[in-house]
Amino acid sequence: MKTAKIRLYVEHPLGQGQTIPLSRDQAHYLFGVMRQGVGDAVLLFNGRDGEWRAEVAEAGKRSGTLVCEAQTTPQRDPPDLWLLFAPIKKARTDFIVEKAAEMGAARIVPVQTDFTNSERIRQDRLQAHAVEAAEQCGGTFVPEVTGLQKLDTLLTNWPEERQLMFCDEALAGAGATLRAAGGERWAILIGPEGGFSETERTRLSALPFAHPVSLGPRILRADTAAVAALTVWQQALGDWA
Amino acid sequence: MKTAKIRLYVEHPLGQGQTIPLSRDQAHYLFGVMRQGVGDAVLLFNGRDGEWRAEVAEAGKRSGTLVCEAQTTPQRDPPDLWLLFAPIKKARTDFIVEKAAEMGAARIVPVQTDFTNSERIRQDRLQAHAVEAAEQCGGTFVPEVTGLQKLDTLLTNWPEERQLMFCDEALAGAGATLRAAGGERWAILIGPEGGFSETERTRLSALPFAHPVSLGPRILRADTAAVAALTVWQQALGDWA
Repeated sequence: MKTAKIRLYVEHPLGQGQTIPLSRDQAHYLFGVMRQGVGDAVLLFNGRDGEWRAEVAEAGKRSGTLVCEAQTTPQRDPPDLWLLFAPIKKARTDFIVEKAAEMGAARIVPVQTDFTNSERIRQDRLQAHAVEAAEQCGGTFVPEVTGLQKLDTLLTNWPEERQLMFCDEALAGAGATLRAAGGERWAILIGPEGGFSETERTRLSALPFAHPVSLGPRILRADTAAVAALTVWQQALGDWA
Repeated sequence: MKTAKIRLYVEHPLGQGQTIPLSRDQAHYLFGVMRQGVGDAVLLFNGRDGEWRAEVAEAGKRSGTLVCEAQTTPQRDPPDLWLLFAPIKKARTDFIVEKAAEMGAARIVPVQTDFTNSERIRQDRLQAHAVEAAEQCGGTFVPEVTGLQKLDTLLTNWPEERQLMFCDEALAGAGATLRAAGGERWAILIGPEGGFSETERTRLSALPFAHPVSLGPRILRADTAAVAALTVWQQALGDWA
């Protein structure tokens, strides 16, 4: 039995003996770029059915078929954690999405704050980054990247029973703050490069579901803050414990 | 008094009334790019004397002078923590150095492991990244980036009383492991993209000063692992507590 080294995300249902048609891009990647052929093994996941070992049954230039052989990992969903962040420069925004997927966020929400510069995001491109990160990190789940949302509106329509950790000025004991708050549905909010506005800060501090935490004495860039905040949360309440 | 928004790292000693000559590059940046002129204020730090407010006394195209007026922040050194990592692709290596500086590492050591691909690093360029990160994160300390060292040699000549946290397969309770080990001098070792070799893993596990910790159930890329490991350490033993 050949060892499968390539992991691919597909949308098709996965199960014993299931046939998986490949898209043109996937066929090009598998057979053109990665030089796989009939009989070679690939690992598949679709975000719902765990990870499966599949074999190439047909390999064409623009199409192909895989057949599912055996489940290699059961489906494992991350904790119910959202990451809200204000989009920054393109490369760093890509990075935040990639890191959020690796660190086990369930949903990624770009938000527009008072000091956010970016007015638009490419949702499809960010979603593709999340898929690629899931392919590489061995996960069986792909977080959804939502469209850009106004922080103001988001807070007004905040879902019941979801806690919000927001990263702001220095405060003691992030882990203890989170554990004291408890709860199973959370969101992390990372401020924009220019910081929150006075209005936003006042509003956030008054919200019963919002918990400010410190990320140390140095100023972190938004992309560093995203990874650090996810680490703090995963250690205190998530699946790293 | 004008507000200083620009932070510059200089090598010159800083103190009340001290005159600071600018290098050609610094003069070009301050006066050419940032459009500063005589009387404008700049924040300076040199990694030893804290942060100082200085005023532009002379502004030329290729030279200039600043005069130190008042200390704005005392010198604050990070905990005695080294970050050892196997260099990866250029952009991600740059990122690790930037993040290590932001997250408060005292020394950054690129290491060559059995599975490290990169044979060379540009030490001067990485050091410049650490300086730039320190300028942006509001820190008064710049971590030293050393030359590429062989992991094998480094472990053989390991400094007395320095603990080593290495990030490997899943193990429970990273924070508890670190707090139990205690000590004030630490190093974090991030493995290469291909993982440690069997020889390295066996050797690391047998070292009395080495403590394996888990970074969760997903596989993290080396650059994510660096930020996550620094977060775990800073929370357990560092200046985030």
